[in-house]
Amino acid sequence: MSAEVRSLNEECGVFGIWGADNASNITYYGLHSLQHRGQEGAGITSNDQGTLLNYKGLGLLSQVFNDPKNLAKLTGRAAIGHVRYTTAGGKNFDNIQPLMFRFSNGDMALAHNGNLTNAFSLKEHLENEGAIFHTTSDTEILIHLLRRSSHTAFLDQLKESLRTVKGGFAFLLMTEKKLYAAVDPNGLRPLILGQTTAGAYVVASESCALDSVNAKIIRDIQPGELIIIDDTGYKVDYYTKETQLAVCSMEYIYFARPDSDIHGVNVHHARKTMGRLLAKEQPADADIVVGVPNSSLSAAWGYAEASGIPYEMGLVKNQYIARTFIQPNQDLRERSVRMKLSAVRGVVAGKRVVLVDDSIVRGTTCKYIVRLLLEAGAKEVHLRIASPALKFPCYYGIDIQSTKDLIAAHQSIPEMNQTFGSKSLGFLSVTSLIKAIGLKTTAPNGGLCVAYFNGDYPTPLYDFEAELQAELQRLHVKAPKRLKQEVS
Amino acid sequence: MSAEVRSLNEECGVFGIWGADNASNITYYGLHSLQHRGQEGAGITSNDQGTLLNYKGLGLLSQVFNDPKNLAKLTGRAAIGHVRYTTAGGKNFDNIQPLMFRFSNGDMALAHNGNLTNAFSLKEHLENEGAIFHTTSDTEILIHLLRRSSHTAFLDQLKESLRTVKGGFAFLLMTEKKLYAAVDPNGLRPLILGQTTAGAYVVASESCALDSVNAKIIRDIQPGELIIIDDTGYKVDYYTKETQLAVCSMEYIYFARPDSDIHGVNVHHARKTMGRLLAKEQPADADIVVGVPNSSLSAAWGYAEASGIPYEMGLVKNQYIARTFIQPNQDLRERSVRMKLSAVRGVVAGKRVVLVDDSIVRGTTCKYIVRLLLEAGAKEVHLRIASPALKFPCYYGIDIQSTKDLIAAHQSIPEMNQTFGSKSLGFLSVTSLIKAIGLKTTAPNGGLCVAYFNGDYPTPLYDFEAELQAELQRLHVKAPKRLKQEVS
Amino acid sequence: MSAEVRSLNEECGVFGIWGADNASNITYYGLHSLQHRGQEGAGITSNDQGTLLNYKGLGLLSQVFNDPKNLAKLTGRAAIGHVRYTTAGGKNFDNIQPLMFRFSNGDMALAHNGNLTNAFSLKEHLENEGAIFHTTSDTEILIHLLRRSSHTAFLDQLKESLRTVKGGFAFLLMTEKKLYAAVDPNGLRPLILGQTTAGAYVVASESCALDSVNAKIIRDIQPGELIIIDDTGYKVDYYTKETQLAVCSMEYIYFARPDSDIHGVNVHHARKTMGRLLAKEQPADADIVVGVPNSSLSAAWGYAEASGIPYEMGLVKNQYIARTFIQPNQDLRERSVRMKLSAVRGVVAGKRVVLVDDSIVRGTTCKYIVRLLLEAGAKEVHLRIASPALKFPCYYGIDIQSTKDLIAAHQSIPEMNQTFGSKSLGFLSVTSLIKAIGLKTTAPNGGLCVAYFNGDYPTPLYDFEAELQAELQRLHVKAPKRLKQEVS
Amino acid sequence: MSAEVRSLNEECGVFGIWGADNASNITYYGLHSLQHRGQEGAGITSNDQGTLLNYKGLGLLSQVFNDPKNLAKLTGRAAIGHVRYTTAGGKNFDNIQPLMFRFSNGDMALAHNGNLTNAFSLKEHLENEGAIFHTTSDTEILIHLLRRSSHTAFLDQLKESLRTVKGGFAFLLMTEKKLYAAVDPNGLRPLILGQTTAGAYVVASESCALDSVNAKIIRDIQPGELIIIDDTGYKVDYYTKETQLAVCSMEYIYFARPDSDIHGVNVHHARKTMGRLLAKEQPADADIVVGVPNSSLSAAWGYAEASGIPYEMGLVKNQYIARTFIQPNQDLRERSVRMKLSAVRGVVAGKRVVLVDDSIVRGTTCKYIVRLLLEAGAKEVHLRIASPALKFPCYYGIDIQSTKDLIAAHQSIPEMNQTFGSKSLGFLSVTSLIKAIGLKTTAPNGGLCVAYFNGDYPTPLYDFEAELQAELQRLHVKAPKRLKQEVS
Repeated sequence: MSAEVRSLNEECGVFGIWGADNASNITYYGLHSLQHRGQEGAGITSNDQGTLLNYKGLGLLSQVFNDPKNLAKLTGRAAIGHVRYTTAGGKNFDNIQPLMFRFSNGDMALAHNGNLTNAFSLKEHLENEGAIFHTTSDTEILIHLLRRSSHTAFLDQLKESLRTVKGGFAFLLMTEKKLYAAVDPNGLRPLILGQTTAGAYVVASESCALDSVNAKIIRDIQPGELIIIDDTGYKVDYYTKETQLAVCSMEYIYFARPDSDIHGVNVHHARKTMGRLLAKEQPADADIVVGVPNSSLSAAWGYAEASGIPYEMGLVKNQYIARTFIQPNQDLRERSVRMKLSAVRGVVAGKRVVLVDDSIVRGTTCKYIVRLLLEAGAKEVHLRIASPALKFPCYYGIDIQSTKDLIAAHQSIPEMNQTFGSKSLGFLSVTSLIKAIGLKTTAPNGGLCVAYFNGDYPTPLYDFEAELQAELQRLHVKAPKRLKQEVS
Repeated sequence: MSAEVRSLNEECGVFGIWGADNASNITYYGLHSLQHRGQEGAGITSNDQGTLLNYKGLGLLSQVFNDPKNLAKLTGRAAIGHVRYTTAGGKNFDNIQPLMFRFSNGDMALAHNGNLTNAFSLKEHLENEGAIFHTTSDTEILIHLLRRSSHTAFLDQLKESLRTVKGGFAFLLMTEKKLYAAVDPNGLRPLILGQTTAGAYVVASESCALDSVNAKIIRDIQPGELIIIDDTGYKVDYYTKETQLAVCSMEYIYFARPDSDIHGVNVHHARKTMGRLLAKEQPADADIVVGVPNSSLSAAWGYAEASGIPYEMGLVKNQYIARTFIQPNQDLRERSVRMKLSAVRGVVAGKRVVLVDDSIVRGTTCKYIVRLLLEAGAKEVHLRIASPALKFPCYYGIDIQSTKDLIAAHQSIPEMNQTFGSKSLGFLSVTSLIKAIGLKTTAPNGGLCVAYFNGDYPTPLYDFEAELQAELQRLHVKAPKRLKQEVS
Repeated sequence: MSAEVRSLNEECGVFGIWGADNASNITYYGLHSLQHRGQEGAGITSNDQGTLLNYKGLGLLSQVFNDPKNLAKLTGRAAIGHVRYTTAGGKNFDNIQPLMFRFSNGDMALAHNGNLTNAFSLKEHLENEGAIFHTTSDTEILIHLLRRSSHTAFLDQLKESLRTVKGGFAFLLMTEKKLYAAVDPNGLRPLILGQTTAGAYVVASESCALDSVNAKIIRDIQPGELIIIDDTGYKVDYYTKETQLAVCSMEYIYFARPDSDIHGVNVHHARKTMGRLLAKEQPADADIVVGVPNSSLSAAWGYAEASGIPYEMGLVKNQYIARTFIQPNQDLRERSVRMKLSAVRGVVAGKRVVLVDDSIVRGTTCKYIVRLLLEAGAKEVHLRIASPALKFPCYYGIDIQSTKDLIAAHQSIPEMNQTFGSKSLGFLSVTSLIKAIGLKTTAPNGGLCVAYFNGDYPTPLYDFEAELQAELQRLHVKAPKRLKQEVS
Repeated sequence: MSAEVRSLNEECGVFGIWGADNASNITYYGLHSLQHRGQEGAGITSNDQGTLLNYKGLGLLSQVFNDPKNLAKLTGRAAIGHVRYTTAGGKNFDNIQPLMFRFSNGDMALAHNGNLTNAFSLKEHLENEGAIFHTTSDTEILIHLLRRSSHTAFLDQLKESLRTVKGGFAFLLMTEKKLYAAVDPNGLRPLILGQTTAGAYVVASESCALDSVNAKIIRDIQPGELIIIDDTGYKVDYYTKETQLAVCSMEYIYFARPDSDIHGVNVHHARKTMGRLLAKEQPADADIVVGVPNSSLSAAWGYAEASGIPYEMGLVKNQYIARTFIQPNQDLRERSVRMKLSAVRGVVAGKRVVLVDDSIVRGTTCKYIVRLLLEAGAKEVHLRIASPALKFPCYYGIDIQSTKDLIAAHQSIPEMNQTFGSKSLGFLSVTSLIKAIGLKTTAPNGGLCVAYFNGDYPTPLYDFEAELQAELQRLHVKAPKRLKQEVS
């Protein structure tokens, strides 16, 4: 289902470039193709021969840089940028990134995608030592750690800090002379290195951002690595060797753009294969296959191809965004869905429809889409979800914050059919999901994080450990198995 | 190809409602689903017990009604609205509709979609009699005619005026007591009547607007008809019986939303059939079929199904709109296409691609899309257009203003392959187009206007007759056959 | 009292220039110095070798031309502009001027300051002949008359039209080749001709606009004159010889900027003299003189000088404009005054204050200012008004629309003292007003319109005649004497 | 001269309230009357039962709180607010105050007016200990000191921190339970305590803000005092007894609003007396006295009264703010002055004018005003400045950053007459300035800081000491005498 229609949201996209004329312009284009990862704030920091220049604001990139002059002021041959989805506490200017840090011995800018699992305890500890935090985000913790490190060399300070923070992260840190890039020891959050035809180095959350600036992929940044870019080129260092690949599977299922490749696997291709395997695991006796535009189209096509049931355009998405003025006696959320999606009466009337969606979170919009189809004359709707049922929260940077919001954690298949008005409902198995993505690795779960489906978190949860246990107990959900020791 | 990426644009959508609480709110929702028909201005006029209230502005509907208070002020149980695409002279507030006319014996509001072919001569004549025009649009001519009519009854004045204007039109006229709707004697521009579940009557350019407000189709408004709606219900009258159906075929090919039905034919279905027939007429030896998102997807799926070549998502459309900051040494238009579309490297690399587009106007963006695919590694691109080649201007309300802009009027197939970088190129035949749409009528050309393809204009061209002849001669294009007499 | 604090408002300022590079820029500067005459809309029409270009919008000039590009587009060596105060019906884009009229034989732009007394009947008559009005303003009547004139020469058509409209007016009409300027047969509304140091001709509502563009005064435009400007220079023609000077006295009292000269009399000087004569007619036993900033300062200084009582800054005006967020249990209007004016405690505490204001309309704000002073510790407040008491409506272009709004028409001096909380109250006499302004003329009332004070309207009132009689009867106000025949 | 026309600017105004319904609304009104102290940013932090809520932005208060909802969200019975003039580094969102600090043991908000003279060295020291600064302003230093204090009680931590920072300051610090207010040991920056009629306590930079919210003055906050306000009332404590009054004399001369009282002296009254004494020290043989609106009016009236030369309105200020579109061959600054001020030809033509201005910084605008008067026909212009000549920088919070910008530091009286085009020029003496203000104190220089005039800085300059010496040497300006020891 399309990102606007639902409540599941990725937190942020990052982009960095070193060694290009118009670095901030290129960063703008790169961020533009990462806009789906965050729409509530954007910012760019450029580096003009050691001077860091910064501009950011609330809203879409095109709103933040509404006045071209603000982009033009960001001169220099290097830049990093950020698009943000704010998870908690509403819109807050202070949290928009890149964050700037101005020290007497030089400036730094930091952009971060992810969520730290030991942020609370680190913050408390640092504050007790006199640290003052200006944002409510996790991001600035890294810099406090770095400035208080017992090491004297900057690189050692940075590595120590990266070892201290836990969870899912992808950091871009720009100093006056260098650009650093690193992901967490499980590679939960994606980050990819490339090079433009003109020779500049580029780092981005997704490869689609590389394409948009005419850059070729060099390599995905691996767990534990620390990439160091400067005027002499790039170097692959590492801050830890205790790593184990566990890429966020939701990136393949829903977040990433279909034209991106993550760890060598094309996202559209993975989704189509999910649809094909879904057709085998969860067949349906129906006349047409309909996907929820736009993000479920790949899976729906796969389903259609594998099942032999023709794909039809049974739902149309309005490309224009409208305000919803609430009317008496009408549900706002339903109105909101109706403003975005329309059923094609001439296509679905009298038909038995297989409705393919990529995932189900709360199930609220799913209910309305089934109703849209039935009101347009569909005889029956068979709901097929191209991913396993979401049952557990994510603590690594996806906005699935509580089990209580996840309908599949509380309702059985028959109950959900009742809720949605669907004739039948089927999910993809975790095994098929792993097979569909098919990473080349011997790591557990095929190198993927599938914790939201089965509770098998790839790391200890630190500050969230107790919270999860309490919530599961309260909700009478069986505690998931858990890795008993630190990753190694 | 999607409306934003190209230079071919529909001029306007209209929506009217009579007999509903929150009439202006419903009109907002209706216009929202017609937004694809015009993005440069929008307006709504409501009727609160005979008092006409008006609000309009430049930009998208959601920009114009950015402040909900402005919509809330439009009280009353009837309303008409308009979304505008300005053809000539750039953005001009005065031309935004509905136009208001305040007379001492009552107010009127008028919304219009189409283009009059005798506007220049009528204006000149009226002006010589003292009429003062305030807009540069054709629309107000109707009211000047009406106020100068020799008839005394309003209905006779209106009918006489409708007989006097020529060309393609769909008018909504709201007076203090009634709502009138009419289309031209050929039904060139679409207009459809419906009724909401709550009993209010609705008239709209496309049936998708009826769906968006929970209204059921009653009937397409037929050539020469004059629909009169008031508190007692609706009545079908006519202003002329000299009619002949010639619906604009570009509505089916490109303009209308796929979920709309026009004269009983679903647009998506028609497009898919165009794709199927195209596959038979213009087969290609290739590995995958790729459609230009979003408007060519239906045709591309039809092509894939009929040819047996698998459909793949080889192009992705960015759902966010960005500004383009021009860079030195870079072509703006290409940048603009790159900001909107991306080729999916993982899908097209090494593949022979059938690229299906709905139509070609200038060919500029087509060229860039072919290049996008080739740069992403496509082995060869076979371009297939799901409509005949555009060679002649339209004078009935589509922004194809001059033969000189139409690449297919000047280049042969091999020349175009050279221009585009495509390996092969094929268009749909006019015969197959007519068959794909399949209107139930005995009118010439299957009840369609296909003049832009073959010059067979369904009416005399009045003020444009000489202009067309001169242009064709200058461009060395063979003059098209023409109907020798008035429609009858 | 300053324009923002009160309800008395001038309707519009006009500015025109012929023969200058950057004509629209100069018009912008000219209009800027006329901004006090209207803040609700602004527009400029330029003339680029016969092509008329237009831009206008709601709000202050600086808001309308917020984007310099919109001004830059108005190329050409001639331009006219307008700042508007909308009297009736709220903000309405359509009424913003200059109005554009595009005819097949050439374009025209019209800017108007004033009010026509026979607008209703002319409109009714024209409409019955088929004319369509697009605005609710009086202004377009002139063009309808012109286009329907029986004369064939444009100049004769224009003169006939100027003879047909009645009331107070100042018109600027720009055609492709010429700029025309005229005022009504009484010269009620001001208009002045000048020449820039670079030789361009300038026409403006007030001479301060001439100063702001480095132009020297040539002459005030006299009643009945028609000034014609083109590339060969300017010519003084006339459309009627039946004239009699009756300049609006409120221009001197309140509207015009103190640095303007009208018919040879400096406005600041006139006001100061009003204050001096007021001191003689209405002395007060007090310690300090305080003027209401900014428009009453001249009069207050005059009062102080003539009375020998020292002038003190007892009231301060906040130069910043703030929104008023209403609080419970608090009167909005009072809050609004408090946001704009502050009493200077250290100056007024313990003092007997002569408060000089230029005029009293409703008296509401006057009441609050007296209270401000008393709350700041003033021992007593003696209110002195530097103009006669307003008792009758104006039909010539000032927003004093009804006798019922004028407190002095309903309350005696003791009643007003009660209302305001003042210890004493005194107005200037009409005789002293005429003496203070001192125009060199033998026309009645010293060449001034003083109708709002004594009902002695200089012209028949046409459409308003019956309205005024009815209102006065209803309000039990004695009907004023009236001129019994047309001006001659 | 008015604040907009010149380059001399106060840095910030602060306002706080404790114990009122609608505390943030009242803060809005209070800040509105302090808007003249800073126009580049504004913010309010409210305290809703211990929860601190914050909103701030760039621009005027009315722009920042353009949407009333943003003010309405700031619930609670206490609030502090700030209006900012950014001195260095341009507009920067991060520096807008109040600054928020969120600690695990409670939130704080801080608003500051002034400049610290040991900020650089303190920052360097703190950073070396691991502190991270997020703004480029001095303000957050206080909190870093507080959090690192060796004391354990909050009050002791705060007092120690206040003793550590040096320079001119007025701090408002709001914690969850209390509001603290303090000024520097010399009282350089003003701060005043009051109480509303409803019983709430108010602290503000100027007493005019107390008037605007119906609060009565309790007392000026004295050097070294620490005012502590909570639900039980207010308490006067102190953080140091080593104090010596040296109020910034520029507050009386130019910055403060005329309706404010500072240390018991009304600002208008002080200015008028400066004008009177100026008339005696620097008489002129002239016909009229003209003041530069608005800030020099008080002094000009004083000059007129004492000299017997009549005051006239020779200059008018445009109350509307316009953009300046640069024209070829025209100086932007001159255009800018012309847009704001006009000479009244009818008043000044043929006259010998005494032009009274409050102070001269660069002299650029002064030059243009003299020219304005001469162009309007003034026979000669005698320039009289109602304060001593500015020759030295201020390090306590006024934007006079360098001696090189001060014309009077480099030019003699005859040279300045040449520069300005004035016939004569005279300044007020320091002795008369001190007498005109007349504080009741035995402190040196009448309890005033007059360092900008004579270099007699009331404190050591710490980080600026060397900078000043070097600059003076480079500019060949004689080093000023200096206090040889710490204040005591």
